[in-house]
Amino acid sequence: MPVPIIIDCDPGHDDAVAILLAAGDPAVDLLAITTVAGNQTVEKTTLNARRICTVAGIADVPIAAGCAQPLVQPLKVADDVHGASGMDGPRFATPTVDVVPEHAVDLMHRILTEHPEPVTLVPTAPLTNIALLLTRYPESAGRIREIVLMGGSTERGNRTPAAEFNVYVDPEAADIVFRSGVPVTMCGLNVTHQALATPEVLARLEALGTELGRTVVELLTFFAATYEQLWGFASPPVHDPVAVARVIDPAIVHCVEASVAVELRGQHTRGATVVDLHRYLDRPVNAQVALALEPDLFWDRVIAAVETLGKRGA
Amino acid sequence: MPVPIIIDCDPGHDDAVAILLAAGDPAVDLLAITTVAGNQTVEKTTLNARRICTVAGIADVPIAAGCAQPLVQPLKVADDVHGASGMDGPRFATPTVDVVPEHAVDLMHRILTEHPEPVTLVPTAPLTNIALLLTRYPESAGRIREIVLMGGSTERGNRTPAAEFNVYVDPEAADIVFRSGVPVTMCGLNVTHQALATPEVLARLEALGTELGRTVVELLTFFAATYEQLWGFASPPVHDPVAVARVIDPAIVHCVEASVAVELRGQHTRGATVVDLHRYLDRPVNAQVALALEPDLFWDRVIAAVETLGKRGA
Amino acid sequence: MPVPIIIDCDPGHDDAVAILLAAGDPAVDLLAITTVAGNQTVEKTTLNARRICTVAGIADVPIAAGCAQPLVQPLKVADDVHGASGMDGPRFATPTVDVVPEHAVDLMHRILTEHPEPVTLVPTAPLTNIALLLTRYPESAGRIREIVLMGGSTERGNRTPAAEFNVYVDPEAADIVFRSGVPVTMCGLNVTHQALATPEVLARLEALGTELGRTVVELLTFFAATYEQLWGFASPPVHDPVAVARVIDPAIVHCVEASVAVELRGQHTRGATVVDLHRYLDRPVNAQVALALEPDLFWDRVIAAVETLGKRGA
Amino acid sequence: MPVPIIIDCDPGHDDAVAILLAAGDPAVDLLAITTVAGNQTVEKTTLNARRICTVAGIADVPIAAGCAQPLVQPLKVADDVHGASGMDGPRFATPTVDVVPEHAVDLMHRILTEHPEPVTLVPTAPLTNIALLLTRYPESAGRIREIVLMGGSTERGNRTPAAEFNVYVDPEAADIVFRSGVPVTMCGLNVTHQALATPEVLARLEALGTELGRTVVELLTFFAATYEQLWGFASPPVHDPVAVARVIDPAIVHCVEASVAVELRGQHTRGATVVDLHRYLDRPVNAQVALALEPDLFWDRVIAAVETLGKRGA
Repeated sequence: MPVPIIIDCDPGHDDAVAILLAAGDPAVDLLAITTVAGNQTVEKTTLNARRICTVAGIADVPIAAGCAQPLVQPLKVADDVHGASGMDGPRFATPTVDVVPEHAVDLMHRILTEHPEPVTLVPTAPLTNIALLLTRYPESAGRIREIVLMGGSTERGNRTPAAEFNVYVDPEAADIVFRSGVPVTMCGLNVTHQALATPEVLARLEALGTELGRTVVELLTFFAATYEQLWGFASPPVHDPVAVARVIDPAIVHCVEASVAVELRGQHTRGATVVDLHRYLDRPVNAQVALALEPDLFWDRVIAAVETLGKRGA
Repeated sequence: MPVPIIIDCDPGHDDAVAILLAAGDPAVDLLAITTVAGNQTVEKTTLNARRICTVAGIADVPIAAGCAQPLVQPLKVADDVHGASGMDGPRFATPTVDVVPEHAVDLMHRILTEHPEPVTLVPTAPLTNIALLLTRYPESAGRIREIVLMGGSTERGNRTPAAEFNVYVDPEAADIVFRSGVPVTMCGLNVTHQALATPEVLARLEALGTELGRTVVELLTFFAATYEQLWGFASPPVHDPVAVARVIDPAIVHCVEASVAVELRGQHTRGATVVDLHRYLDRPVNAQVALALEPDLFWDRVIAAVETLGKRGA
Repeated sequence: MPVPIIIDCDPGHDDAVAILLAAGDPAVDLLAITTVAGNQTVEKTTLNARRICTVAGIADVPIAAGCAQPLVQPLKVADDVHGASGMDGPRFATPTVDVVPEHAVDLMHRILTEHPEPVTLVPTAPLTNIALLLTRYPESAGRIREIVLMGGSTERGNRTPAAEFNVYVDPEAADIVFRSGVPVTMCGLNVTHQALATPEVLARLEALGTELGRTVVELLTFFAATYEQLWGFASPPVHDPVAVARVIDPAIVHCVEASVAVELRGQHTRGATVVDLHRYLDRPVNAQVALALEPDLFWDRVIAAVETLGKRGA
Repeated sequence: MPVPIIIDCDPGHDDAVAILLAAGDPAVDLLAITTVAGNQTVEKTTLNARRICTVAGIADVPIAAGCAQPLVQPLKVADDVHGASGMDGPRFATPTVDVVPEHAVDLMHRILTEHPEPVTLVPTAPLTNIALLLTRYPESAGRIREIVLMGGSTERGNRTPAAEFNVYVDPEAADIVFRSGVPVTMCGLNVTHQALATPEVLARLEALGTELGRTVVELLTFFAATYEQLWGFASPPVHDPVAVARVIDPAIVHCVEASVAVELRGQHTRGATVVDLHRYLDRPVNAQVALALEPDLFWDRVIAAVETLGKRGA
């Protein structure tokens, strides 16, 4: 039976691919898409979620907009990476799917309450919505099967030397999530940098011969250009679908148990996820931490999902 | 026309007096009482709100329970000051008023939306509910006339050398409130320590000859004992009604404009409200800061309110 | 028998008065004057020490220059308070006393080693020299009778809302001193603000009829002007001699035992001395903390010292 | 002409190898060995420096003991890595070389002042002595050619998830060094983990057939056991000689320019060296940061030095 999930995202090129994987793969049942400020303002990330659902023919999954600002600090967007729209590259038609008139957090709570079994949350954005859910509806924690998130890093960051973007944008929210007691799996940069959209991957997507396949190629081509320019990557890492892939098949993403703490106070390290892989510190394990990806298995699932949706849309 | 207010509180001996002042004084219109964890758990502070409303005959003001935990850190209660019940001292009958089935933050938002004019919030507790309101319903900020809070200090704290209890319990919430852009008035320890329940004050309350008057005397007698024991005060400071009094008549509480920042990171100073009275720092003014109380005017209003309610109840 | 002391200072108007008190009072034996960067650069504070010794006829006390920079952070001087020279106001003749060719810290160590009894250090400046002494010559700690310092505050600061100038300039040095295990007495702003150079004090100094008396009046007149302008004081607090007075006669400065911690990490509170007067925290006592001054006793000793030196100089 | 250097160390197994490389390689002129607390107390690290010099026949290089404690925080030694003696493994004879009766910092200053050309400092220990040198003798900064240190990491730490041991022990000292303006080259864990004492390396040392060669093998065998046990390394990284090798021949250790900041305030990251390889932050370059080692060149120089000294000793 497919695992029921909600994706909480800020599309975002790689968020778009995460949505496609979640909607197109039979191993998960995508119950909702919620949006939050991060890569761009929540207005833009919500529009982008509607755009990607429209082009992919995802019409039956509710989309709800959430928080416009991080909990404690002002919003810092990633327009240098994702462009002014937050999902630059393809030319999107006016979306035909709309948002539901419910706040992201209320929708998540309602689904968690009503769904017959516990639901997995897959945040691929700053964790503001998830932290707000846990604060406003503490009882919902018991209805979350697990939180499998893209964010953080066991190594260096990508927004400061120490901090990965999603945690950098809302460190307090990340801290709330990691200390919540809900089972958390962290797919950080250390593993998502193994999910590279190589020319071979792009060729396979192109070869699908669908409009959706071409859109994904255009997204990843734009993304490749910014990653090449900003960091010198030969192929861009497609972070967010890694978290979805972990839910689809745990064998795609290898994890170890570890203590993870979010640095809230450092002068140069605020937003770092401090992962105690060697048990230097006497702290309890609070997360599964992804260390290695099986890239072939990963890309097979992603491309299959794009294929499935693309045919359906045609 | 009376000023419409909502009290957000954690009764709490002095919160109880704040409720009585707000319910009994003709200058304010008490629209709701919301509760939060602080002096005790939210279950206990909510029960205490119902108890004081019952004994005072306050039956038409909705009471709604809010957050059970601070935003980021675990709850630390003040049972050393307020006892195991959070309002030790009097023997209360089973309350006859109940809570409404709505979260404090939703009730606040609904009232702010529906009330014809902007509403003043009077928090006398950790600011968790207010921060959650601003995060979940950012549009409500524009409907808040001002936030007149009891909390912080221009001088020393009362929970650590640097931190006052309400800010100590939820520093991130306080930080959100002070940086929200909503007009804030801070009534800190420096001014509430001028609101002393002297023997003369107790005698005047006793002389009212009402059950409510006697209950208040019992509350303040318990409070006096803990203040004497813990801090050596000859008479206890009755903090929370000072914020209500400021709304009732600004002339009771003298304020200056200043920049207030909440220390979130210090090793020994977390939760301090750093008030820049001398403009040492180049920071914009973000609060009215109370510096002096007119104690006679203050107690006259408090005692009059208790008298009004006590007669009504009789 | 007089108490042997070394003054470590950054003259500085009030440092100058501290030197005069130490040199002119029979209850202490001033073994050396060491200088450090603080109110001004160490070049200027050293020149000022030579100037005040010259005008006061203090020729037999070695003066040694110490650190030019705080331990960890860059120097910030107080030219707004003390002027471009660090001791603006009087017109000083070219000094006739010179510095010894020894670093302040080496001189302190040599005196501590050679003097037959333990020596009291009286720092009235940032604690850089003292911290360096304890780091470079840890064995000298056992030869220090006590450290009686002007610095810190039990209440608000005077350089930021939380930090007093001497601790603000070198918080790490203050931290080293307070955690050194050497007996420390802290005379902070809370008590030095009771040492006001009132018009009556100035009249008594003027009435001495000596050049030195007039110089002190000129110093305090300049100081009064800056205190009036910056903080609105009617009469200026003369901080530094309070520490000397505590050594001369402990009855002049009333102290309590307390735990004192220096905040090194706060965003808004770095440099605060967190004094746990109410034992909120479970920390061992590490200081005598001055709480009250006997101003009449204080000024009598100061004026008597100026009189003694002024006659000798004449 | 050989580069004049001073090694400041806390032997320590790998410090011992660094001393041998510096004493035995013709490209550097080892002017002094100074010791500091770190891997063990300064008494033990000084004894270990005398031991390794005795077994290697290094009799003409002055050894001076320095600081017994980090600047601000208490000492934490690494007896889990280096054993109770700080250099467990071999059985050492009573040393025949002694320390000079001069503090490490005074000796460094004297050499810097007297040597005809600027001298390179090679710290392979906590930076307490170097920071004290810069504080006590700021004029000596101009006589230092560069500081080529083993410490820090561009990636994870080895004492906490974020901090490498030498910086972890005295973060303020490291901060002082990196902000001093003296040219600094940082050889961190990221590069020293490439200097592995493989079985082949041990075999080559054994094959030298000298007592010194055997002693080095015994040192590295003990070190290998702790690295295997604590971190699962197949062969132990021999950190400290990497810094010496960089001075001997820059081509052995490849560096890039970067901004390096030491985190002093983090809750979970204190002591991290935050290296801005991607110029995320707008901070000036203050260090050469080692990124890659040529291990063959490295071990050739180390083994040649041990051979040279071993023959001389025989």
